[in-house]
Amino acid sequence: MPAPAASILDQLFVTVAGRKGGDPDKSYTAKLFSRGRGKIAQKLGEEAIETVVAGLTEGPDRLVSESADLLYHLMVLWADCGVAPAEIWAELEKRQGVSGIDEKKARKK
Amino acid sequence: MPAPAASILDQLFVTVAGRKGGDPDKSYTAKLFSRGRGKIAQKLGEEAIETVVAGLTEGPDRLVSESADLLYHLMVLWADCGVAPAEIWAELEKRQGVSGIDEKKARKK
Amino acid sequence: MPAPAASILDQLFVTVAGRKGGDPDKSYTAKLFSRGRGKIAQKLGEEAIETVVAGLTEGPDRLVSESADLLYHLMVLWADCGVAPAEIWAELEKRQGVSGIDEKKARKK
Amino acid sequence: MPAPAASILDQLFVTVAGRKGGDPDKSYTAKLFSRGRGKIAQKLGEEAIETVVAGLTEGPDRLVSESADLLYHLMVLWADCGVAPAEIWAELEKRQGVSGIDEKKARKK
Repeated sequence: MPAPAASILDQLFVTVAGRKGGDPDKSYTAKLFSRGRGKIAQKLGEEAIETVVAGLTEGPDRLVSESADLLYHLMVLWADCGVAPAEIWAELEKRQGVSGIDEKKARKK
Repeated sequence: MPAPAASILDQLFVTVAGRKGGDPDKSYTAKLFSRGRGKIAQKLGEEAIETVVAGLTEGPDRLVSESADLLYHLMVLWADCGVAPAEIWAELEKRQGVSGIDEKKARKK
Repeated sequence: MPAPAASILDQLFVTVAGRKGGDPDKSYTAKLFSRGRGKIAQKLGEEAIETVVAGLTEGPDRLVSESADLLYHLMVLWADCGVAPAEIWAELEKRQGVSGIDEKKARKK
Repeated sequence: MPAPAASILDQLFVTVAGRKGGDPDKSYTAKLFSRGRGKIAQKLGEEAIETVVAGLTEGPDRLVSESADLLYHLMVLWADCGVAPAEIWAELEKRQGVSGIDEKKARKK
């Protein structure tokens, strides 16, 4: 029986966070941390644009690949800002109860 | 013992995908689907910008909240394009083996 | 004979910059300045996304309208950061001499 | 007496539009056109992110440079979509009469 699929994100976060302070010549993630939060946020933004463009003009394969890039860079930003994935899961869980238009209002209060 | 945290994304995806074709007056998600893929992609892009700005100028709480918004809209785009979360988990899993700078090359080939 | 069309940007910048410190209840621009640079940058990013989506999925009319929004918010950011339009014109002028692939290298040095 | 500064954009647009169909090996702009609208829009989005990040975390010099990149790619998108700069100047001119909060309402109607 496979492990619960989505927990790959928790695993990936552990790997990502562990690269902080690592050798920039040996790890892309360590290099990204060494370039600072501005660069990390920029990469996240760029991957989001690529995801948007993939969704609008390319096939599902590109969307899968760009979404993976987006999630990876999102987790680098979380690690750099001291945010743990569990905090985002808790936030999503909290919203699950609320639904429909009310859910939107709850999100944007 | 709590359920594996990250699988909240799989649960959320089921909820989101189930709103496709629903009543736009009763559900924000149904309304978003009804406005079409351009609007969905636009919202994803906007939430990414808000995440970038939160990471650079606001505290961790805003980053958590904006990240949740980002993930939610990402899943709406996945659902609209017929992509399942498991495809993204598989893509991330595949990359896990590869590491460091090589991993970057693998991602950007 | 009409005034040189593009100088509308210089005129608009003067108007925009003049709203700094103005009454947020009377002017959208003054309100934007009062909300701070994070918000200004966020709005610029959002208008860029809307321009991208308009270019990919909507007609020329939407592209014109979103581009105008983008340019307006770009100038609010310039004013907030103490950058004058003439500095950007000078930068573009400098690049004009260089062309083709070399121009790209010059831009990205 | 120097030419009106902002009209550099009109000049640049003529150069940019003239590269359409040109040799991708000799001109970055021709290469960009050859890669299609999705790529052009993506580059515009990426430059916007870089402008946002420059405004929030870097000095005015970077903002000037990134804004120039943003404007250049915006004009490539205009050219690809058959939109002329004069259409955007006219749109901005039209809005000039309207001011303050009303202006915002006019923009977002």
